[in-house]
Amino acid sequence: MAAALPPALARLVQALTRLPGVGEKTATRMALQVLRWPRAQARELARAVGELHDRIRLCSRCQTFSESDPCPVCADPRRDTTRLCVVEDPGDLLAVEKAGAFRGRYHVLHGVLAPMDGVGPDQLKIRELLERVRAEGVREVILATSPTVAGEATAGYIADLLREMGVEATRIACGIPMGMDIKYADRQTLQKALEARRRA
Amino acid sequence: MAAALPPALARLVQALTRLPGVGEKTATRMALQVLRWPRAQARELARAVGELHDRIRLCSRCQTFSESDPCPVCADPRRDTTRLCVVEDPGDLLAVEKAGAFRGRYHVLHGVLAPMDGVGPDQLKIRELLERVRAEGVREVILATSPTVAGEATAGYIADLLREMGVEATRIACGIPMGMDIKYADRQTLQKALEARRRA
Repeated sequence: MAAALPPALARLVQALTRLPGVGEKTATRMALQVLRWPRAQARELARAVGELHDRIRLCSRCQTFSESDPCPVCADPRRDTTRLCVVEDPGDLLAVEKAGAFRGRYHVLHGVLAPMDGVGPDQLKIRELLERVRAEGVREVILATSPTVAGEATAGYIADLLREMGVEATRIACGIPMGMDIKYADRQTLQKALEARRRA
Repeated sequence: MAAALPPALARLVQALTRLPGVGEKTATRMALQVLRWPRAQARELARAVGELHDRIRLCSRCQTFSESDPCPVCADPRRDTTRLCVVEDPGDLLAVEKAGAFRGRYHVLHGVLAPMDGVGPDQLKIRELLERVRAEGVREVILATSPTVAGEATAGYIADLLREMGVEATRIACGIPMGMDIKYADRQTLQKALEARRRA
């Protein structure tokens, strides 16, 4: 019975269900938790949500979310300017950055090609990517979109454009995740892992 | 590398990780999602969080979270005043209310006895429960705390007090959840289900 949920609580539950992976049950649990917090802690969350859009914009170079323009990575003179890692969204950039295995710069597409949903090359930051490659003397573009159908198609599309420009396009490797028992890997991953085998 | 997370985003991630079941990874995914929302939608969430503590208080009768005092359930003259369902927290009240199988009133304990964590009878709304039982002419108290060690202990403690007052104390039934294959039930649940068997 919805009558049992006070309106102020119902409004928060409603707002929380728009978060990824949050259904009504989880949202209710979260909202009840917020009520148990000290009032100051709730204000902190409210403030953090409220000011987010005011403070964050897109870096005009790599298109990631940033408070400064250019973003800290683009502004860092120690980063290798000849290599560009292309990712689908800012979350992927954070993941690669956290892995700490890449010292070049990034370019965020903000999506993948999805013609059925009306997402073509013009809806992604592909024009911006090609302009950067031209202007910044990039020699290698690492296509780090996800190994999904749409991610592969997007990588393939961009790779063709880059090759026409005479720029090297590479693709991140697919295979068994580290630490995973191969019997739990799906068939396609196993096929990819076998195809991409190297001398031990 | 934390350097890649803009401060405004990091603050929101930090605030979100205090929600139940939200780790840093989930919080980051949520915060990035909020950035993709229309600005108005983010403001709605900020407002809902911000006003929550101002609008919600405890119902002075049943102790649940409510915007009005008494809460709508306590104020509803159609509810059976002779039966009281005792639950651990407001979330449990909502679950029982949603099931729609109870037409009496509630009493929220706001926890269970946990002597190791310093939670004794005085930290729960037990005194308030006994006062209500006396004042409101309650005839049956249904103890609907969870069938956990602490929930059972709390129910047992309150049942003893009620019996001393000559008030009937009952306990919700334990058994196999509806729709569950019994081979997936744990041993203790199966034991309880067998002990509590009824003529078919």
